[in-house]
Amino acid sequence: MTTATHQLPTGFRIAACDAGIAAGERPDLMLAVADEAFPFAAVFTKNRIIAAPVALCREHARRSGHLARALLVNAGNANCCTGADGDADAMRSAELVANTLECPVEQVLVLSTGVIGKRLPTERLLAAVPRLFDDLGRDPAMIQEAAEAIRTTDTCAKIEARTLACGEGREGHMLGLAKGSGMIHPDMATMLGFLFSDVDPGMDLGLALRAATDMSFNRITVDGDTSTNDAVILWSSQRMSLPEGPTAFMENLDSMSLALAKKITADGEGASKLVRIHVSGASTQTDARQCASTIATSLLVKTAVHGEDPNWGRILAAAGRADVAIDTRKVKVGIGGATLFAEDHPRPEEEPAAREHLEGKEVLIWIDLGCGVLEAEAWTCDLSADYVRINADYRT
Amino acid sequence: MTTATHQLPTGFRIAACDAGIAAGERPDLMLAVADEAFPFAAVFTKNRIIAAPVALCREHARRSGHLARALLVNAGNANCCTGADGDADAMRSAELVANTLECPVEQVLVLSTGVIGKRLPTERLLAAVPRLFDDLGRDPAMIQEAAEAIRTTDTCAKIEARTLACGEGREGHMLGLAKGSGMIHPDMATMLGFLFSDVDPGMDLGLALRAATDMSFNRITVDGDTSTNDAVILWSSQRMSLPEGPTAFMENLDSMSLALAKKITADGEGASKLVRIHVSGASTQTDARQCASTIATSLLVKTAVHGEDPNWGRILAAAGRADVAIDTRKVKVGIGGATLFAEDHPRPEEEPAAREHLEGKEVLIWIDLGCGVLEAEAWTCDLSADYVRINADYRT
Repeated sequence: MTTATHQLPTGFRIAACDAGIAAGERPDLMLAVADEAFPFAAVFTKNRIIAAPVALCREHARRSGHLARALLVNAGNANCCTGADGDADAMRSAELVANTLECPVEQVLVLSTGVIGKRLPTERLLAAVPRLFDDLGRDPAMIQEAAEAIRTTDTCAKIEARTLACGEGREGHMLGLAKGSGMIHPDMATMLGFLFSDVDPGMDLGLALRAATDMSFNRITVDGDTSTNDAVILWSSQRMSLPEGPTAFMENLDSMSLALAKKITADGEGASKLVRIHVSGASTQTDARQCASTIATSLLVKTAVHGEDPNWGRILAAAGRADVAIDTRKVKVGIGGATLFAEDHPRPEEEPAAREHLEGKEVLIWIDLGCGVLEAEAWTCDLSADYVRINADYRT
Repeated sequence: MTTATHQLPTGFRIAACDAGIAAGERPDLMLAVADEAFPFAAVFTKNRIIAAPVALCREHARRSGHLARALLVNAGNANCCTGADGDADAMRSAELVANTLECPVEQVLVLSTGVIGKRLPTERLLAAVPRLFDDLGRDPAMIQEAAEAIRTTDTCAKIEARTLACGEGREGHMLGLAKGSGMIHPDMATMLGFLFSDVDPGMDLGLALRAATDMSFNRITVDGDTSTNDAVILWSSQRMSLPEGPTAFMENLDSMSLALAKKITADGEGASKLVRIHVSGASTQTDARQCASTIATSLLVKTAVHGEDPNWGRILAAAGRADVAIDTRKVKVGIGGATLFAEDHPRPEEEPAAREHLEGKEVLIWIDLGCGVLEAEAWTCDLSADYVRINADYRT
């Protein structure tokens, strides 16, 4: 962490309020406004069923040439599987914001998260928009409110910030807000990530976002379900230039994205532990990633971690079904610093050390496939009875 | 069901006993012996990590030309990831059986199921083999004991039988024993299935088994994890001929395999409901199967079923990430007789009927992708907090 206070990058203002969309008294609508139309990049869900606002954002990105004045996001309702009504609801929200700002409607992005298949309470949403405009500001407390406003089953708001040296004592900023926490799986999953910056990246914003996403949000899994609504947006006022150029920008963007992704995973529904899966010794990068993802998705591995049981057999069995090259005589498996299987034999004498490691909040599971030199990591969480309780009762 | 009592097909004898391999007082070792070397077909796990007995069976099938005199199966220990010692343990068991029968060792099959990575208690196993030979018989009570002896976390023994008319008032028989019930997923999963018959199939046994498996054991999922030990064996004394030829044989084999597969799924760890996923309107058979499998594996769908929540949005979201062609304007989703989404709109008025259907023990989830005429089915179970409890504590 290079910063303690959360500062909004120059050129942006933000606000949040309780619009009465999500149940309970809580902020559920946030608005971010740029001083002028700034460039953005976006990555959206690969799910073939996409929510109305995602379709709208894709179209607006195309029509605006990836320039945005405003971003409006609600929690509590996904506005997905809502037909032509849903499309109209998303468009009405965008139009109200555009009219207020006197900007083209395609410069307004709207996103939603929450329950699928219920009509968005658009009147309540529209009624709240003027309040949001009144409250727009740069107060750190408002940043916190905005992060709260995009939560669904998240138990905490997820914020990361970075400060970049811009020469002559000047500072640039990055600020990221994100939400999880079920339907989380690579390729965007049910998550939203909003990455603000005032730094000129010195490189294509889209390339920067795809690279950062590939190493962070696309490496996490909570339950293997990917959602209809997810989006990560990188938006920069580009007011500050970086003497160090793209490298410093990418380093900070990567580190912020990974930190947010890990926060999402650690706050997976019902999760009590963050699990890092490290695969080495793979013959290809694809093998390494696929093996890490398969282990990260295994219910038997995730329940064993929950039970603090160093059940390396399940790790090896998951790797075995990942359809990747494994040298069964050379493969090694471990938990934390303990090697539990090597040279074709279990090492029960190292199980106590693994068991102790599993008692912590952050767990490392590793496997060396014995076939090459390539590596990959994935992050997941344990699977608890609480996950089932949360998801068996989500709507009722 | 064409039969009520369980009759062992002609040419086989069976026995089971408590060899002290699995915890507690229960049968954990079964032996089936053929009067002479009969042909068999086998399908094994596709996991790259395979248990010692699976490797031995593959080799024995090759060397014997798929002829077997005996099948020895233990529960309580998988003899997997046990190195050269494990290979030797499996071979010693096979050798003792072969010596007793005075047959070539490659005509003996041995299989194991249970915990991975612990040395098989071979001395106890070998000590029990003479008792099994003493007890060999055709008593229905012994069939029940044998089915009990292959259980791990199964809550009940799984037996199916079929009687086939062989002309002139004579009857042929099929008997199937199977076990689940975690690590269940297509491509053999953690399951064992032993299908005995005394009928000449009038076709290649291997083709018959692959066809039957493809429509049954490879269409079920409990938790998406496939195991290191699984095997389905079809073994026939071929003493009876079928006037109707291969068709009657395949019909009975298919129906028995599917019935066993459904029993495994219904008895999935922690499961309270059997869920049938029916996909129609697919443009290809691959799409239909992949969509059915993706929905069957979705934790969010499985927890919603557990909560008896007609959350069709999760079904549609799972179909959306299955990477199959969906016409989002024509797609229809339902539960039981209720259509919950059609013509691009939710139908909340049908939710009460879906909710009532979900209260039953057998649940139908269906989706019409609106893209073609191809169909597929898959079977799964609900995901309960008990699944987590069973698997968080399995070894401890």
